[in-house]
Amino acid sequence: MNKVAVVMGSDSDWPIMQKACLLLEQFGISFEAKVLSAHRTPELMLQFARNAKELGFSVIIAGAGGAAHLPGMLASNTILPVVGVPIKLETLDGLDSLLSIVQMPKGVPVATVAINNATNAALLVISMLAIHNDQLAKAYHNYKDAMANESVAKNANLLF
Amino acid sequence: MNKVAVVMGSDSDWPIMQKACLLLEQFGISFEAKVLSAHRTPELMLQFARNAKELGFSVIIAGAGGAAHLPGMLASNTILPVVGVPIKLETLDGLDSLLSIVQMPKGVPVATVAINNATNAALLVISMLAIHNDQLAKAYHNYKDAMANESVAKNANLLF
Amino acid sequence: MNKVAVVMGSDSDWPIMQKACLLLEQFGISFEAKVLSAHRTPELMLQFARNAKELGFSVIIAGAGGAAHLPGMLASNTILPVVGVPIKLETLDGLDSLLSIVQMPKGVPVATVAINNATNAALLVISMLAIHNDQLAKAYHNYKDAMANESVAKNANLLF
Amino acid sequence: MNKVAVVMGSDSDWPIMQKACLLLEQFGISFEAKVLSAHRTPELMLQFARNAKELGFSVIIAGAGGAAHLPGMLASNTILPVVGVPIKLETLDGLDSLLSIVQMPKGVPVATVAINNATNAALLVISMLAIHNDQLAKAYHNYKDAMANESVAKNANLLF
Amino acid sequence: MNKVAVVMGSDSDWPIMQKACLLLEQFGISFEAKVLSAHRTPELMLQFARNAKELGFSVIIAGAGGAAHLPGMLASNTILPVVGVPIKLETLDGLDSLLSIVQMPKGVPVATVAINNATNAALLVISMLAIHNDQLAKAYHNYKDAMANESVAKNANLLF
Amino acid sequence: MNKVAVVMGSDSDWPIMQKACLLLEQFGISFEAKVLSAHRTPELMLQFARNAKELGFSVIIAGAGGAAHLPGMLASNTILPVVGVPIKLETLDGLDSLLSIVQMPKGVPVATVAINNATNAALLVISMLAIHNDQLAKAYHNYKDAMANESVAKNANLLF
Amino acid sequence: MNKVAVVMGSDSDWPIMQKACLLLEQFGISFEAKVLSAHRTPELMLQFARNAKELGFSVIIAGAGGAAHLPGMLASNTILPVVGVPIKLETLDGLDSLLSIVQMPKGVPVATVAINNATNAALLVISMLAIHNDQLAKAYHNYKDAMANESVAKNANLLF
Amino acid sequence: MNKVAVVMGSDSDWPIMQKACLLLEQFGISFEAKVLSAHRTPELMLQFARNAKELGFSVIIAGAGGAAHLPGMLASNTILPVVGVPIKLETLDGLDSLLSIVQMPKGVPVATVAINNATNAALLVISMLAIHNDQLAKAYHNYKDAMANESVAKNANLLF
Repeated sequence: MNKVAVVMGSDSDWPIMQKACLLLEQFGISFEAKVLSAHRTPELMLQFARNAKELGFSVIIAGAGGAAHLPGMLASNTILPVVGVPIKLETLDGLDSLLSIVQMPKGVPVATVAINNATNAALLVISMLAIHNDQLAKAYHNYKDAMANESVAKNANLLF
Repeated sequence: MNKVAVVMGSDSDWPIMQKACLLLEQFGISFEAKVLSAHRTPELMLQFARNAKELGFSVIIAGAGGAAHLPGMLASNTILPVVGVPIKLETLDGLDSLLSIVQMPKGVPVATVAINNATNAALLVISMLAIHNDQLAKAYHNYKDAMANESVAKNANLLF
Repeated sequence: MNKVAVVMGSDSDWPIMQKACLLLEQFGISFEAKVLSAHRTPELMLQFARNAKELGFSVIIAGAGGAAHLPGMLASNTILPVVGVPIKLETLDGLDSLLSIVQMPKGVPVATVAINNATNAALLVISMLAIHNDQLAKAYHNYKDAMANESVAKNANLLF
Repeated sequence: MNKVAVVMGSDSDWPIMQKACLLLEQFGISFEAKVLSAHRTPELMLQFARNAKELGFSVIIAGAGGAAHLPGMLASNTILPVVGVPIKLETLDGLDSLLSIVQMPKGVPVATVAINNATNAALLVISMLAIHNDQLAKAYHNYKDAMANESVAKNANLLF
Repeated sequence: MNKVAVVMGSDSDWPIMQKACLLLEQFGISFEAKVLSAHRTPELMLQFARNAKELGFSVIIAGAGGAAHLPGMLASNTILPVVGVPIKLETLDGLDSLLSIVQMPKGVPVATVAINNATNAALLVISMLAIHNDQLAKAYHNYKDAMANESVAKNANLLF
Repeated sequence: MNKVAVVMGSDSDWPIMQKACLLLEQFGISFEAKVLSAHRTPELMLQFARNAKELGFSVIIAGAGGAAHLPGMLASNTILPVVGVPIKLETLDGLDSLLSIVQMPKGVPVATVAINNATNAALLVISMLAIHNDQLAKAYHNYKDAMANESVAKNANLLF
Repeated sequence: MNKVAVVMGSDSDWPIMQKACLLLEQFGISFEAKVLSAHRTPELMLQFARNAKELGFSVIIAGAGGAAHLPGMLASNTILPVVGVPIKLETLDGLDSLLSIVQMPKGVPVATVAINNATNAALLVISMLAIHNDQLAKAYHNYKDAMANESVAKNANLLF
Repeated sequence: MNKVAVVMGSDSDWPIMQKACLLLEQFGISFEAKVLSAHRTPELMLQFARNAKELGFSVIIAGAGGAAHLPGMLASNTILPVVGVPIKLETLDGLDSLLSIVQMPKGVPVATVAINNATNAALLVISMLAIHNDQLAKAYHNYKDAMANESVAKNANLLF
């Protein structure tokens, strides 16, 4: 079974990044969450990226804010897919985080999702893993169906 | 072997999206390129997304510009991973394309890469497929090594 | 008599979109409000757009936020006029919603109003319907006159 | 038969606004194009807006750039629907034009289309007029079908 | 003695615009404050602008938010200097207000000050009137000196 | 007769700022144009601002780009009205210039006009001087009338 | 031993700028904090900049918001390195402050740090002074090590 | 004598970064220019940063564009001051480069200069080195004086 790394620049990102973990758990995907700072522990970060595959990880989800270098630097040091979650900080409304993560140069992509949307990062990982996992594909189909049902049910809330 | 769909909103996106195809070809990954407009042929687009898995596709790369709905609408209709390439049009410098693709709501992620960077979309797909394909993983490693060598070699160009 | 559809991506948009309904009601225009997600229930959305005219609707008001695809996708699937209301979400202050709705490509317009301004969406619909409805035209004139009077009366509030 | 006014702040907007006229002509809708500046001929502008309905116009398309006040000021002085086309000028890439037109206050909507997209302004008008004109509705359907066919045909252009 | 008009689009702008009045009062400059909406009472607005000089006004200060047309439309209809105060509304942080006021086309300037900074609008007016009023010039000099003294005195507040 | 100072940060601003001079000349207003850099000749700049009134100037027009400090620093050192012209440089499309000039703190206003719009700076000065100069007021009225006529005449250019 | 000047445009910047002082103190670097306004006390500001070196200062840290001219004007009047801290004010989320400080023209650099990040301004100064101060270099190394340890320790906070 | 490292992400940055080298040369400061990519050669980059001080460097100038991680990652791995030059790429006008470099988190500053302004990066380095080098301080003073003289001389170019 595949394992997912959920890393973040600081524990202040945890309230956002925890949502990725909750969804992975819901789908029965094993994961490890860790604080790993591109700026404060660059060597640990590099080491982790270099060894991630050997450590049994298949994908990395990385959240960071401001001049957010963590997702891109992980991507520079592994061939595993890296999913980036731009975290909104106190200024600029997440725009700096988004651009620092998504605008990667030719050769080193980061799969960027919406600002603060760690749930979508987990879903993206699930879609990747489902390519070779029919049971997961089925679970994802069910998730989508449930989501559709919930959406329809919300009509009951349009009260004057 | 996995097959990749490379779709785009218009043939005017082809000079950009072709780069994804060239890289996939270089890695020996089969792909199909097609024009498929969320706005002009919504039913064909939906149909394609619904059947993509059955048609043998494992991943979809989708490029679009302006109020770019193609990547997100494909993602709404498939459980395959969708990689979005924001295409820069004549106004707003690609910012509209980027935000229309990356800011997807909870439940429907699009793996967004940098504006106009179709090459990175292909590399992201390669990293996904390499999870279960050691030969591809090796080829990607080699690509990264070559890129590093080229980078080092560029030092020779710093001439006064 | 014409009927207006007021659709929105989620029930969280209701506090904003309700204002459109209130104004339509005030003008005696029949309407139906519904949650309809381009991303979570794409097929229902498409079906609705395809059948809207047959269901007796003359115009569609659609509100959505973030990578807001609902107004544009409805417009892709109907020849009815679609009025788009960009809803401000938690990041980027409504800019993503606005650009995702207004920057539609050649061939598929969405009549976009100001961020969160569902009242104006209703007024725009009223102006459209008033083209062939003299009574409505008269009511709209009266509304404008009342608005002018209120504006003048506000002078009494400029107290030190 | 309904008549459409196509007004613009300056003749420098004509290369863009002409596209609206060409499309209206193609659909057999009568129109009049005129330069009318909110800033340089405010009284003429106001007079025009006040009398537009009496002059036989059903809808107004208005294009302007920069601190673009023409569409909003016309809307302030008529109950006809006003469609605004933000024109991109030499600085700020059309963002100023877009915000000056779309961000209208409660009570005075402008149906805003994409920057420089006068063709879509005309299509929006067609969709409004088609509410009570079955022949026009049919023509618009055909236009959409043709657009879909063209989109499909573009697949032939994806050549390496 | 010169008289200043302080106009605003709505009484909701009063908490901001009041600051201009307070400063004018402090300098002994007579003024009149009024609500005057370019969008809701366009004819009154135009009339006011046309007659402002005859009514004894020398300068106009105008505050407005969103697609803020009031300052520019007043400037279109008078040769008096118009000072524009962009008012920040609930979305876009005042950027729409600023661009709608400052980006006026060739021929119709608005003297724009910082977002929400009505005090500066009053000071700008004072500097204009001081060109031909030595007493006012002296008072403005004293104001600047007091401001400098206050600035120096603030050093006492830098406590750990 | 009043004299106007037209200052700019560098001679590269001259193609833009020259337009202010041409208009002042057309209105028979005497002016002096000079390069005066807040950053490269701060002392000269300060001296000039301090003495501007004594040198016979009534108003200052100042153009600058990027982190444009010239208009604001002049305003800090004189009680004459300062009109700021944001000059667009090679990056950021004039946004940095605009914000650096218009967002002045409480106490030190700069009358900001549109990016690159030196003609409007001159017109603003004319409107200030016309407060106490009936002949100039008349000339400005004529200018506005001519502008209106030109605007009307442009209708002849709307050719298919 | 080197001395650092920590200047700010107003005492309202003190809660931010105080952080720079606290860090300098922690590293045993002497400093003086003062309010010095480019706009309200331009001559004092200039004088300070001119004499800063003679007064024994080696570096200047300057914080300011809005059209923030203080860092750039200090840099214009001294050859000491000037570190600029953009302070976020009530509108535009610090973007105006950032651009007004960082976009300095050729010839007059300001070493700009992140919005509101006065701690980093102090660290930047420490890195400059450490070039010729081995003890400080060592202390900075220790600071970095402590930061890394703290970062690792934060892993304990990732609790469900 | 101190030595400066001038590093850049790619040789395509050389036309910009060369200007830093030319200025350093003019001031007689020894430097080495090299291509070093945070994304393509992360290990070399890290190694370089770790050893820069031992290699005899006193300061690092780093230029990069897009999701520009080079300056920040170097700063993470050295205690030398790092000066960042945001390079403008083909989209977003340098805004992504600027935010990715300047918005560094607490603990790891990058001294950011204006977009594309490598000359200012060199001047900033000169100001740092001049703290302990009177001859360099004198040369920098002369440079400033020459700049002032050039600025004054530009007055001769204001020709009609």
